[in-house]
Amino acid sequence: MDNVIILAGGQGKRMKADMPKPMFTVLEEPMLEWVIKACEGAGLSRICVVKGFEAAQIDAYLNGRYETVLQEERLGTGHAVMQAIPFMQQEQTGNTLVLCGDAPFIDSDTIRNALEQHVQEGNAVTVITALAENPKGYGRILRGDNGITCIVEEKDATEEQRRIREINSGAYWFRTADLITLLGGLTQNNAQGEYYLTDTIYLALHSGKRAGAYLSENPDVVLGANDRKGLLMLNTVARLAQIEKHLENGVAFTCTDGITITRDVEIGAGTEILPGTIIRGKTKIGANCIIGPNCLIENCEIKDGVRLNYVQAYQSVIEAGVKIGPFVHIRPNSHIMSGVKIGDFVEIKNSTIGENTAVAHLTYVGDSDVGKKVNFGCGTVTVNYDGIVKSRCEIGDNCFIGCNTNLIAPVKLGKAVYTAAGTTVTRDVPDYSLAIDRGVMQVKEGYTLRKLKGKL
Amino acid sequence: MDNVIILAGGQGKRMKADMPKPMFTVLEEPMLEWVIKACEGAGLSRICVVKGFEAAQIDAYLNGRYETVLQEERLGTGHAVMQAIPFMQQEQTGNTLVLCGDAPFIDSDTIRNALEQHVQEGNAVTVITALAENPKGYGRILRGDNGITCIVEEKDATEEQRRIREINSGAYWFRTADLITLLGGLTQNNAQGEYYLTDTIYLALHSGKRAGAYLSENPDVVLGANDRKGLLMLNTVARLAQIEKHLENGVAFTCTDGITITRDVEIGAGTEILPGTIIRGKTKIGANCIIGPNCLIENCEIKDGVRLNYVQAYQSVIEAGVKIGPFVHIRPNSHIMSGVKIGDFVEIKNSTIGENTAVAHLTYVGDSDVGKKVNFGCGTVTVNYDGIVKSRCEIGDNCFIGCNTNLIAPVKLGKAVYTAAGTTVTRDVPDYSLAIDRGVMQVKEGYTLRKLKGKL
Amino acid sequence: MDNVIILAGGQGKRMKADMPKPMFTVLEEPMLEWVIKACEGAGLSRICVVKGFEAAQIDAYLNGRYETVLQEERLGTGHAVMQAIPFMQQEQTGNTLVLCGDAPFIDSDTIRNALEQHVQEGNAVTVITALAENPKGYGRILRGDNGITCIVEEKDATEEQRRIREINSGAYWFRTADLITLLGGLTQNNAQGEYYLTDTIYLALHSGKRAGAYLSENPDVVLGANDRKGLLMLNTVARLAQIEKHLENGVAFTCTDGITITRDVEIGAGTEILPGTIIRGKTKIGANCIIGPNCLIENCEIKDGVRLNYVQAYQSVIEAGVKIGPFVHIRPNSHIMSGVKIGDFVEIKNSTIGENTAVAHLTYVGDSDVGKKVNFGCGTVTVNYDGIVKSRCEIGDNCFIGCNTNLIAPVKLGKAVYTAAGTTVTRDVPDYSLAIDRGVMQVKEGYTLRKLKGKL
Repeated sequence: MDNVIILAGGQGKRMKADMPKPMFTVLEEPMLEWVIKACEGAGLSRICVVKGFEAAQIDAYLNGRYETVLQEERLGTGHAVMQAIPFMQQEQTGNTLVLCGDAPFIDSDTIRNALEQHVQEGNAVTVITALAENPKGYGRILRGDNGITCIVEEKDATEEQRRIREINSGAYWFRTADLITLLGGLTQNNAQGEYYLTDTIYLALHSGKRAGAYLSENPDVVLGANDRKGLLMLNTVARLAQIEKHLENGVAFTCTDGITITRDVEIGAGTEILPGTIIRGKTKIGANCIIGPNCLIENCEIKDGVRLNYVQAYQSVIEAGVKIGPFVHIRPNSHIMSGVKIGDFVEIKNSTIGENTAVAHLTYVGDSDVGKKVNFGCGTVTVNYDGIVKSRCEIGDNCFIGCNTNLIAPVKLGKAVYTAAGTTVTRDVPDYSLAIDRGVMQVKEGYTLRKLKGKL
Repeated sequence: MDNVIILAGGQGKRMKADMPKPMFTVLEEPMLEWVIKACEGAGLSRICVVKGFEAAQIDAYLNGRYETVLQEERLGTGHAVMQAIPFMQQEQTGNTLVLCGDAPFIDSDTIRNALEQHVQEGNAVTVITALAENPKGYGRILRGDNGITCIVEEKDATEEQRRIREINSGAYWFRTADLITLLGGLTQNNAQGEYYLTDTIYLALHSGKRAGAYLSENPDVVLGANDRKGLLMLNTVARLAQIEKHLENGVAFTCTDGITITRDVEIGAGTEILPGTIIRGKTKIGANCIIGPNCLIENCEIKDGVRLNYVQAYQSVIEAGVKIGPFVHIRPNSHIMSGVKIGDFVEIKNSTIGENTAVAHLTYVGDSDVGKKVNFGCGTVTVNYDGIVKSRCEIGDNCFIGCNTNLIAPVKLGKAVYTAAGTTVTRDVPDYSLAIDRGVMQVKEGYTLRKLKGKL
Repeated sequence: MDNVIILAGGQGKRMKADMPKPMFTVLEEPMLEWVIKACEGAGLSRICVVKGFEAAQIDAYLNGRYETVLQEERLGTGHAVMQAIPFMQQEQTGNTLVLCGDAPFIDSDTIRNALEQHVQEGNAVTVITALAENPKGYGRILRGDNGITCIVEEKDATEEQRRIREINSGAYWFRTADLITLLGGLTQNNAQGEYYLTDTIYLALHSGKRAGAYLSENPDVVLGANDRKGLLMLNTVARLAQIEKHLENGVAFTCTDGITITRDVEIGAGTEILPGTIIRGKTKIGANCIIGPNCLIENCEIKDGVRLNYVQAYQSVIEAGVKIGPFVHIRPNSHIMSGVKIGDFVEIKNSTIGENTAVAHLTYVGDSDVGKKVNFGCGTVTVNYDGIVKSRCEIGDNCFIGCNTNLIAPVKLGKAVYTAAGTTVTRDVPDYSLAIDRGVMQVKEGYTLRKLKGKL
């Protein structure tokens, strides 16, 4: 069985935050999660995460999902991998993939194909490489007649070597038994006093083993970030890649400014995403919708033909053909049925809104079960909280809720109930009834003349 | 008289939508419309649109505006033009322009100037060309001593020919009588078994006629889109061109992100457009306004010195010096008079708001005629719908509408009427009167101590 | 003592606005202000601004802060500086810096370092220069064995001279006494009939004085704008520079689209700014906040850990850990205490909101002093204006304000007061009491059947 060791002990000082570098996010997922998912996608499940700086955050995030091991002192990449020797000793027959926890764009295909070549060539170590437009700063790959001969760091490279465009991604496949042996040969005999994992290549070759390089088709495998600017760049790369994926699926964009779509979002063909829209989490959007401008959608299921304009929606289901906005807030656990229209300045929370119901303006529907073809007047409030408990409102089909009505929960309106504008509904109302609580409007003539005497 | 044949039969499979390719939009107009407008701008009005894939959509869009002809099988560009032979036979004396319905950036100047040269040179055919930075994928123009000798497709081009930067835009002027003859000579003797319109050049030359090329100054005439990514690119080109046009007219932009202004919009000098703003349709904006951030304006007339902040406005007129926002929705048929202030969370619909009136917050004014210097309290609602009919409210000058007032339409408030907060106004109120519907507020002492016993 | 002369008389015709060019803004400050601040940052306080076109606007803006002098006719840069001869004659012992009022990116380091070199080299004049990627259109610097020999304008330059990448920024240090003398030697003997300041170099060299060049490390010192497009470019340069500064300080950005942060804004490490957010004025934001998307913040003090989502906030203080949004408007003079939650469609104006108070939805709190742990029901309105005066509401700790309550100011609610939904509170309410103004809700059975007879 094959192992994975993910190096996640780094600090990222220039980020100016007390967080392990692999916990910084790209498209709202920690870089560590990107690396783990690439492994999982390649069918690898025996993973050990080497933690160091702020190790507790790694543990809290993984929450037992995978094994971790602590690198107490940070003495280089080789030293980090050494901490995982006990992990490898439990399963020495196969190969071990070593990955940087802060290089999020390693992909499953690269991992799988690199392993295949690694095994086929009978290598002790196979470094995963990429071709860089501008290789500056990266270790260059020196290839010989039989595999690679060396990885030369920028500072040690000759003028000619610096022109080599094949660079080290920092990811490697090792034959597990060989890796354990090679780690034993690493020393701190260098300027930094660190154990370098790259030295294993030299050691492997000198013990007669073979070292190879797998050139990934994905040039982004090498990308990482040392500061906030680099992290912004990683987010930009990932953001544009997601948009491109959706374009290929037939999603329409006319201007991508301010659009962020995280990785797990699904969008149907013919849907248009307008600028300023952020779509996150497990959101699934159907075909032929118009979403945006300036929507924020999190973990929602949105069916075909929905129109959302300046809407924020969280953990809710919106059925086909619904039209919402502008300026609407759909809070968790809402279910908006087909044909519903929701207008401006409306909050829906933890409620079901029945088919073809209209909530046109300035209304709060919370903790309510609303029937079909209900009409909410402007300024309606479901009074779901009395300072102690929250209760529900039940509103039957075809109800007509007058403007500025208060529905004091728990309360049930039957079918086709009318409430008069300004009424506070304090008890259940039977089918086809009118609920009204209104005094007699009085007119005091000449009032303004007295009030504004001399000011009119 | 000159003819135009617009080829609009293509599918655009990679778009992943059942729509003819020329119906995909750039800046919210179908590409076909861009092409038609360029013809109209050049004074051409005898137009035939060749439809094919999903032809009914072309018919529905054109709605009889121009003639159409159906290409039942799609056997190449030559075959498409053949379908228009009967159209040309009605008017054979002049010239015929053949355009691609999915190359939206052809312009009236190019069309006119190309025709002029076409006639002057006595050409049977004049291909409209452009100079490309990167000609890859386009047909190259081979010029001889007397006009052009050939259009070579990428795949047939020699290394040297590939370096030619003058490329075929796919638009041509033909002498009409010659075109009818040349079409008769086209064959399907090629790998694809299609009739190629470009073969007419070879045929023309071999029958002793002249073929010329008009090099357009506008390199964008060649641009088209085969997939959503290409369509995004066309939108970006058009979007930036519109912004540049407004910059030249003295409109201020400090950051253009998320700004889309469609083609017919007019904006006065000194107006500033802030990010995230979309302006569509026949909108006309005056001078020295500030529009944005995040406005969405459709078919509005906005006079000088208006300030809109997070406003959506549709089919309405906003007079000089009005200040609206943030978070306001102006729905169709509203007329906002000079000096009005509209604050946050306000919807105006199908209403006139008189001069210097204030609607500060959380208010809905629908189907209403509001006078001058009216003050709307927070939470006011014009109750314009009783579940059966919509009615209007009339509010006189200098009225002071108390907070959370309901005005039950149809209702008329005279001049300088006061309504008490929380009042539901159910009948007309005469000038200078106070309308009040309020009980006597009672105080129940110790209520909270009893209610929250042990919880305070 | 050293002098500064800032040339601010230009028009900028292509801007299409009646404003002196240096009054056009970059990141919401006039370019003239950028130049003044660079001088102030370099310790220079003896400044004379030469005004010309629309001079009154310069005076109004400076408001007496610095001396101004009017250039009545515009006869070139030399002529502009001549107007300041009386200003210089008051203080002839030191040096004089001449700056363009519309080149906003001159910086204090460049000013200081150029002066140091100017004095060290004993120059009569030291031109401040920069290295340009593309020097086209700028005056080229010709260096000789001892200082510079000439500034050659584009149109007069030989092919070889045009390849020179060191260009004139239009900023100069002069020995003051020399400048006064040199100005006396300028003539209008040129095609434009203007007095060119650059001619002083020739005059200096011909009178045996030395002319030098100080090469600034900041290539942006040369940037100016002649039209709206150029002004957009200056804004973009400044906008990205500010974002880069905050990235270096540990502020997180995942997409910078639509983000503008003006120069005086401070932001703590670990804070994330989301797209579409504009932050202006003297705003100070703490650490670990999340601001955006689509916020507009002006002159606010925002403490650590605050979360603002679609919020507009002006001249207010928001304490640590507050969560606001989406769709909220915080107007001036508000103070939002720690732990407060403000939900959707809420306006706060000129009010203090006590610790841990909740204002969940559709509420207006204006001119109010609100205690701790208060709960505002939906639709609550502080009725702070009666058409004549504005008054305040005082709401004690632990109050529970029922939905659609009107609080008619001036009014005081004691501790833990309850108000019933729909109540209009017209007088003070003592501690622990319930205020209620409600009729008896009546039910009229069968109402709907009668009303909608035949329509149900």
